[in-house]
Amino acid sequence: MSTVTPCCPPLTERPFTAEEAERTARMFKALGDPVRLRLFSLVASHEGGEACVCDISDVGVSQPTVSHHLKKLKEAGLLTSERRGTWVYYRVEPGVLAGMGQLLGTPSGA
Amino acid sequence: MSTVTPCCPPLTERPFTAEEAERTARMFKALGDPVRLRLFSLVASHEGGEACVCDISDVGVSQPTVSHHLKKLKEAGLLTSERRGTWVYYRVEPGVLAGMGQLLGTPSGA
Repeated sequence: MSTVTPCCPPLTERPFTAEEAERTARMFKALGDPVRLRLFSLVASHEGGEACVCDISDVGVSQPTVSHHLKKLKEAGLLTSERRGTWVYYRVEPGVLAGMGQLLGTPSGA
Repeated sequence: MSTVTPCCPPLTERPFTAEEAERTARMFKALGDPVRLRLFSLVASHEGGEACVCDISDVGVSQPTVSHHLKKLKEAGLLTSERRGTWVYYRVEPGVLAGMGQLLGTPSGA
Protein backbone atom coordinates (compact mmCIF):
# COMPACT_ATOMS: atom_id res chain seq x y z
CA MET A 1 0.00 0.00 0.00
CA SER A 2 2.72 2.44 0.97
CA THR A 3 6.44 2.20 1.41
CA VAL A 4 7.36 3.18 4.92
CA THR A 5 9.00 6.55 5.15
CA PRO A 6 11.36 6.15 8.06
CA CYS A 7 9.88 8.32 10.76
CA CYS A 8 13.00 8.80 12.75
CA PRO A 9 16.75 8.43 12.90
CA PRO A 10 18.32 5.42 14.59
CA LEU A 11 17.66 5.44 18.34
CA THR A 12 21.42 5.63 18.88
CA GLU A 13 21.97 8.75 16.74
CA ARG A 14 20.51 11.48 18.94
CA PRO A 15 17.75 11.79 21.55
CA PHE A 16 14.30 11.42 20.03
CA THR A 17 12.02 14.43 20.09
CA ALA A 18 8.68 14.07 21.87
CA GLU A 19 6.91 13.84 18.53
CA GLU A 20 9.23 11.16 17.15
CA ALA A 21 8.89 9.15 20.35
CA GLU A 22 5.10 9.44 20.23
CA ARG A 23 4.93 8.07 16.69
CA THR A 24 7.45 5.29 17.21
CA ALA A 25 6.25 4.12 20.61
CA ARG A 26 2.92 3.14 19.02
CA MET A 27 4.59 0.38 17.01
CA PHE A 28 6.59 -0.92 19.95
CA LYS A 29 3.52 -0.82 22.18
CA ALA A 30 1.50 -2.84 19.67
CA LEU A 31 4.18 -5.56 19.78
CA GLY A 32 4.46 -5.29 23.56
CA ASP A 33 1.59 -7.69 24.18
CA PRO A 34 2.42 -11.42 24.02
CA VAL A 35 -0.77 -12.39 22.17
CA ARG A 36 -0.35 -9.61 19.60
CA LEU A 37 3.31 -10.51 19.13
CA ARG A 38 2.36 -14.15 18.46
CA LEU A 39 -0.31 -13.05 15.99
CA PHE A 40 2.15 -10.73 14.27
CA SER A 41 4.72 -13.53 13.89
CA LEU A 42 1.96 -15.87 12.73
CA VAL A 43 0.91 -13.46 9.97
CA ALA A 44 4.52 -12.59 9.10
CA SER A 45 5.52 -16.24 8.75
CA HIS A 46 2.32 -17.53 7.15
CA GLU A 47 2.33 -19.11 3.71
CA GLY A 48 1.90 -16.41 1.08
CA GLY A 49 2.72 -13.72 3.64
CA GLU A 50 -0.88 -13.28 4.72
CA ALA A 51 -3.36 -14.82 7.14
CA CYS A 52 -6.99 -14.42 8.10
CA VAL A 53 -8.71 -15.18 11.39
CA CYS A 54 -9.74 -18.46 9.72
CA ASP A 55 -6.04 -19.48 9.71
CA ILE A 56 -5.58 -18.82 13.42
CA SER A 57 -6.79 -21.28 16.00
CA ASP A 58 -4.02 -22.04 18.44
CA VAL A 59 -3.14 -18.90 20.33
CA GLY A 60 -5.44 -19.62 23.26
CA VAL A 61 -7.85 -16.73 22.75
CA SER A 62 -11.25 -16.52 21.06
CA GLN A 63 -11.74 -15.49 17.43
CA PRO A 64 -13.23 -12.10 18.39
CA THR A 65 -10.17 -11.45 20.54
CA VAL A 66 -7.89 -12.43 17.64
CA SER A 67 -9.80 -10.00 15.40
CA HIS A 68 -9.48 -7.26 17.99
CA HIS A 69 -5.71 -7.70 18.26
CA LEU A 70 -5.25 -7.85 14.49
CA LYS A 71 -7.10 -4.54 14.23
CA LYS A 72 -4.80 -3.04 16.86
CA LEU A 73 -1.76 -4.17 14.87
CA LYS A 74 -3.27 -2.58 11.78
CA GLU A 75 -4.00 0.68 13.62
CA ALA A 76 -0.35 0.78 14.71
CA GLY A 77 0.71 0.60 11.06
CA LEU A 78 2.19 -2.89 11.35
CA LEU A 79 -0.34 -4.83 9.27
CA THR A 80 -2.47 -4.06 6.24
CA SER A 81 -5.76 -5.78 5.54
CA GLU A 82 -7.89 -6.71 2.57
CA ARG A 83 -11.36 -8.22 2.58
CA ARG A 84 -11.86 -11.09 0.14
CA GLY A 85 -15.24 -12.79 0.35
CA THR A 86 -16.03 -13.75 3.93
CA TRP A 87 -12.63 -13.07 5.38
CA VAL A 88 -10.28 -10.19 6.02
CA TYR A 89 -6.70 -11.10 5.16
CA TYR A 90 -3.81 -9.47 6.98
CA ARG A 91 -0.23 -9.07 5.86
CA VAL A 92 2.78 -7.25 7.24
CA GLU A 93 2.89 -3.66 6.05
CA PRO A 94 5.68 -3.54 3.47
CA GLY A 95 8.82 -1.93 4.81
CA VAL A 96 7.75 -1.96 8.42
CA LEU A 97 10.34 -4.53 9.53
CA ALA A 98 13.10 -2.72 7.65
CA GLY A 99 11.89 0.57 9.13
CA MET A 100 12.03 -0.78 12.67
CA GLY A 101 15.42 -2.28 11.88
CA GLN A 102 16.64 1.19 10.93
CA LEU A 103 15.43 2.54 14.26
CA LEU A 104 17.53 -0.06 16.00
CA GLY A 105 20.49 0.92 13.90
CA THR A 106 20.67 -2.43 12.14
CA PRO A 107 20.93 -2.37 8.34
CA SER A 108 17.59 -3.03 6.70
CA GLY A 109 17.05 -6.56 5.43
CA ALA A 110 15.51 -7.85 2.22
CA MET B 1 28.34 -7.66 30.86
CA SER B 2 26.77 -10.42 28.82
CA THR B 3 26.35 -10.99 25.14
CA VAL B 4 22.70 -11.37 24.35
CA THR B 5 21.71 -14.89 23.49
CA PRO B 6 19.03 -14.41 20.88
CA CYS B 7 15.86 -15.56 22.56
CA CYS B 8 13.93 -16.33 19.48
CA PRO B 9 14.00 -16.77 15.72
CA PRO B 10 13.08 -13.88 13.41
CA LEU B 11 9.39 -12.98 13.73
CA THR B 12 8.97 -13.89 10.07
CA GLU B 13 10.40 -17.42 10.35
CA ARG B 14 7.59 -19.26 12.16
CA PRO B 15 4.87 -18.38 14.67
CA PHE B 16 6.30 -17.59 18.08
CA THR B 17 5.47 -19.94 20.93
CA ALA B 18 3.67 -18.48 23.94
CA GLU B 19 6.90 -18.57 25.92
CA GLU B 20 8.94 -16.81 23.22
CA ALA B 21 6.25 -14.15 22.86
CA GLU B 22 6.16 -13.61 26.61
CA ARG B 23 9.91 -13.01 26.81
CA THR B 24 10.12 -10.81 23.74
CA ALA B 25 7.01 -8.72 24.36
CA ARG B 26 8.64 -7.37 27.54
CA MET B 27 11.28 -5.53 25.51
CA PHE B 28 8.79 -4.12 23.04
CA LYS B 29 6.46 -3.09 25.86
CA ALA B 30 9.28 -1.24 27.61
CA LEU B 31 9.89 0.79 24.44
CA GLY B 32 6.16 1.25 23.89
CA ASP B 33 5.97 4.30 26.11
CA PRO B 34 6.99 7.65 24.56
CA VAL B 35 8.88 8.89 27.61
CA ARG B 36 10.78 5.62 28.01
CA LEU B 37 11.58 5.58 24.31
CA ARG B 38 13.01 9.10 24.53
CA LEU B 39 15.05 8.14 27.57
CA PHE B 40 16.32 5.02 25.82
CA SER B 41 17.42 7.03 22.77
CA LEU B 42 18.96 9.64 25.07
CA VAL B 43 21.07 7.01 26.84
CA ALA B 44 21.87 5.19 23.59
CA SER B 45 23.06 8.37 21.87
CA HIS B 46 24.79 9.99 24.86
CA GLU B 47 28.48 10.77 24.83
CA GLY B 48 30.43 7.76 26.04
CA GLY B 49 27.36 5.54 25.60
CA GLU B 50 26.08 6.16 29.09
CA ALA B 51 23.97 8.67 30.97
CA CYS B 52 22.78 9.29 34.50
CA VAL B 53 19.68 11.10 35.74
CA CYS B 54 21.99 14.10 36.18
CA ASP B 55 22.37 14.25 32.39
CA ILE B 56 18.64 14.29 31.75
CA SER B 57 16.64 17.43 32.18
CA ASP B 58 14.53 18.04 29.10
CA VAL B 59 12.03 15.24 28.73
CA GLY B 60 9.24 17.02 30.55
CA VAL B 61 8.99 14.72 33.56
CA SER B 62 10.44 14.94 37.06
CA GLN B 63 13.74 13.31 38.06
CA PRO B 64 11.99 10.62 40.16
CA THR B 65 9.88 9.76 37.10
CA VAL B 66 13.00 9.59 34.95
CA SER B 67 14.57 7.22 37.51
CA HIS B 68 11.44 5.09 37.53
CA HIS B 69 11.44 4.71 33.75
CA LEU B 70 15.17 3.97 33.60
CA LYS B 71 14.60 1.17 36.12
CA LYS B 72 11.80 -0.23 33.96
CA LEU B 73 14.12 -0.23 30.94
CA LYS B 74 16.71 -2.05 33.03
CA GLU B 75 14.18 -4.63 34.24
CA ALA B 76 13.23 -5.29 30.62
CA GLY B 77 16.87 -6.12 29.88
CA LEU B 78 17.43 -3.06 27.69
CA LEU B 79 19.77 -1.08 29.92
CA THR B 80 22.47 -1.97 32.42
CA SER B 81 23.40 0.26 35.34
CA GLU B 82 26.41 1.00 37.48
CA ARG B 83 26.60 3.21 40.53
CA ARG B 84 29.59 5.56 40.63
CA GLY B 85 29.64 7.99 43.52
CA THR B 86 26.34 9.81 43.81
CA TRP B 87 24.89 8.71 40.49
CA VAL B 88 23.73 5.57 38.76
CA TYR B 89 24.93 5.46 35.16
CA TYR B 90 22.91 3.64 32.54
CA ARG B 91 24.05 2.22 29.23
CA VAL B 92 22.41 0.10 26.54
CA GLU B 93 22.80 -3.59 27.32
CA PRO B 94 25.40 -4.83 24.83
CA GLY B 95 23.89 -6.79 22.00
CA VAL B 96 20.32 -5.77 22.72
CA LEU B 97 19.91 -3.69 19.56
CA ALA B 98 21.45 -6.42 17.40
CA GLY B 99 19.22 -8.98 19.14
CA MET B 100 16.08 -6.98 18.41
CA GLY B 101 17.31 -6.47 14.85
CA GLN B 102 17.52 -10.25 14.49
CA LEU B 103 13.94 -10.58 15.66
CA LEU B 104 12.90 -8.21 12.91
CA GLY B 105 14.84 -10.24 10.41
CA THR B 106 17.34 -7.47 9.75
CA PRO B 107 21.02 -8.36 9.84
CA SER B 108 22.68 -7.43 13.10
CA GLY B 109 24.68 -4.21 13.10
CA ALA B 110 28.11 -3.44 14.47
